[in-house]
Amino acid sequence: MASLGHVTPQSLHFAEPLALQSGAALSDYTLVYETYGTLNADRSNAVLVCHALNASHHVAGTHAGLERSEGWWDNMIGPGKPLDTNRFFVIGVNNPGSCFGSTGPMHLNATTGRPYGADFPVVTVEDWVNAQARLLDRLGIERLAAVMGGSLGGMQALSWTLQYPQRMGHALVIASAPNLSAQNIAFNEVARRAIITDPDFHGGDFYAHGVVPKRGLRVARMIGHITYLSDDSMEEKFGRALRSAELAYSTQEIEFQIESYLRYQGDKFSEYFDANTYLLITRALDYFDPARAHGGDLAAALARAQAKFLVVSFTTDWRFSPQRSRELVKALVDNRRTVSYAEIDAPHGHDAFLLEDPRYHAAVRAYLEHVAQEVHA
Amino acid sequence: MASLGHVTPQSLHFAEPLALQSGAALSDYTLVYETYGTLNADRSNAVLVCHALNASHHVAGTHAGLERSEGWWDNMIGPGKPLDTNRFFVIGVNNPGSCFGSTGPMHLNATTGRPYGADFPVVTVEDWVNAQARLLDRLGIERLAAVMGGSLGGMQALSWTLQYPQRMGHALVIASAPNLSAQNIAFNEVARRAIITDPDFHGGDFYAHGVVPKRGLRVARMIGHITYLSDDSMEEKFGRALRSAELAYSTQEIEFQIESYLRYQGDKFSEYFDANTYLLITRALDYFDPARAHGGDLAAALARAQAKFLVVSFTTDWRFSPQRSRELVKALVDNRRTVSYAEIDAPHGHDAFLLEDPRYHAAVRAYLEHVAQEVHA
Repeated sequence: MASLGHVTPQSLHFAEPLALQSGAALSDYTLVYETYGTLNADRSNAVLVCHALNASHHVAGTHAGLERSEGWWDNMIGPGKPLDTNRFFVIGVNNPGSCFGSTGPMHLNATTGRPYGADFPVVTVEDWVNAQARLLDRLGIERLAAVMGGSLGGMQALSWTLQYPQRMGHALVIASAPNLSAQNIAFNEVARRAIITDPDFHGGDFYAHGVVPKRGLRVARMIGHITYLSDDSMEEKFGRALRSAELAYSTQEIEFQIESYLRYQGDKFSEYFDANTYLLITRALDYFDPARAHGGDLAAALARAQAKFLVVSFTTDWRFSPQRSRELVKALVDNRRTVSYAEIDAPHGHDAFLLEDPRYHAAVRAYLEHVAQEVHA
Repeated sequence: MASLGHVTPQSLHFAEPLALQSGAALSDYTLVYETYGTLNADRSNAVLVCHALNASHHVAGTHAGLERSEGWWDNMIGPGKPLDTNRFFVIGVNNPGSCFGSTGPMHLNATTGRPYGADFPVVTVEDWVNAQARLLDRLGIERLAAVMGGSLGGMQALSWTLQYPQRMGHALVIASAPNLSAQNIAFNEVARRAIITDPDFHGGDFYAHGVVPKRGLRVARMIGHITYLSDDSMEEKFGRALRSAELAYSTQEIEFQIESYLRYQGDKFSEYFDANTYLLITRALDYFDPARAHGGDLAAALARAQAKFLVVSFTTDWRFSPQRSRELVKALVDNRRTVSYAEIDAPHGHDAFLLEDPRYHAAVRAYLEHVAQEVHA
């Protein structure tokens, strides 16, 4: 399938403060975004794609002069792809608090003249959705054909249906959940403790010390990776394969290929990801819980939603298991919402939402085909 | 049920070096052990109980003058309990490399006059079994009625059937596996990296620096705890319960009860567990793989076994899932061994093997009743 080719990030500055769920405000911030395809005459064919923990506005296409710079959902989005840029105007936006361009903890806090660090205000899924809605205002898009996301991105798509029910037609909620389980929060908390207790974290002020809490970031990423893969796919990919023919009988050297893989992933991540961003984004995951204000009643929480839904889960995803997607589907059906649900039998665990499974892509393609006809895209 | 009451640890010194699987040797070591009940006249009623990661020779009863000093399997072992000390002579032994009394990395290395630290030789399940066999030699016990253990202790029971097939009648292998999966190794590796990269680890030589790598130990224990509990039991026990009525909107403060629980467990563990021991024991777990020498053919590996088996698994144990126990059962049946298998529908995950589930205890009780009749105990 053809790729979008080179794409160019854009940015917009927002001078009006963004009031946050915590009661704080983010003053004077910038959002980085990319768009693909062409907005149609009645401005009805826009699809917003929301990103998860380790991703950005760079959803599809490549950046000129950079090898292997495909966007994180390049297999899903482009000309002739399931989200077809020949028909839709696709918007990817980097959320505030991230480390990929939009205002985040490594940027200067105008009030203090120093990087925000740990003082960057805690942002929630709801805050991100509000920031995204403001971006759409500036782009002159009143109503989205669809909002789409996987994992934490799916939570944003879901939150859109509650915060701006009139501004969207469809929500595609993929490999996601209506909130984190205790086990999900537990994994996030271990990762955060690894970062916060790294002496190089300096209470979040490590920029001033010229260091990076790499040890903590490595451990956080290794934990994350374990939860992204299924037990089975890890077994198939690595099993008990040894790095050398003979055992070294060492507690510190690498013996098993899985160790080598995890250390590599951890090292790579610690080179580019911001520690404060990791804390902020895992916290946003923890906090998301639309049912909370309704005493835990998800159906009551979703009563506001007007969108039609595609919900997709993957059988081997133990981070956001199909059971969690079924909770969402049930609460939507209880509200007589129109819901399509696909439970994809895929071996890859949570990572499956980023991979090119033919049944998965066919389900998304068919759904978006239907959306395209609605908006005459 | 009555407890054993006060029990007293004993110790034996071994002057002859223990040859290890790695090719190294452990010279001049001490084993700490406890015994309960009475060895019968023909010395046929001895049951060896093997410990797992965070446990010791102190299997049952209490230590005088210490509150809450019940042994780790006190609900299983004692007068009238499933492993009935009125009938059996029960032996608990602390494995070398541990931090609970037997020679370990915090003890003086006679060769250097300094603590072993990271120089403590890597020990394997097979090495521990050899050390246990030597202890039995010294206690004048030629043949065990049974060897019993859960988790890593179950691996030792299994290894006994291969290393000393003539010296035992029965093996009780509970919540265990014939080897670790890639995911199991991955969790161990993250825990080890957290410890090793803690600046207070000092390459394992932290004793000399008067510090303890507590940050790493905390993270290691938090990861461990997540894998001991089932997703469901964590959900039931903690769910998304908050510590305070209002959210603090903080990445560092505790918001959820599960965070509080994990931090507490991590803190407590870091106060008493030795970091080098953690590395050694997780490595012993990684290495255990009797099928390895047989090209991965577990049935071929188990051809040496003569014991009869009770294998027990727990439905919600995702660390050592029932599937892993069934692999073991199948390989034993392929060898026409006598195997009883109980798959207990319990909600508590891997921890279930330490808890008092009536069906679980009934299965162990019935099996050991049968063993007692065989040895006229």
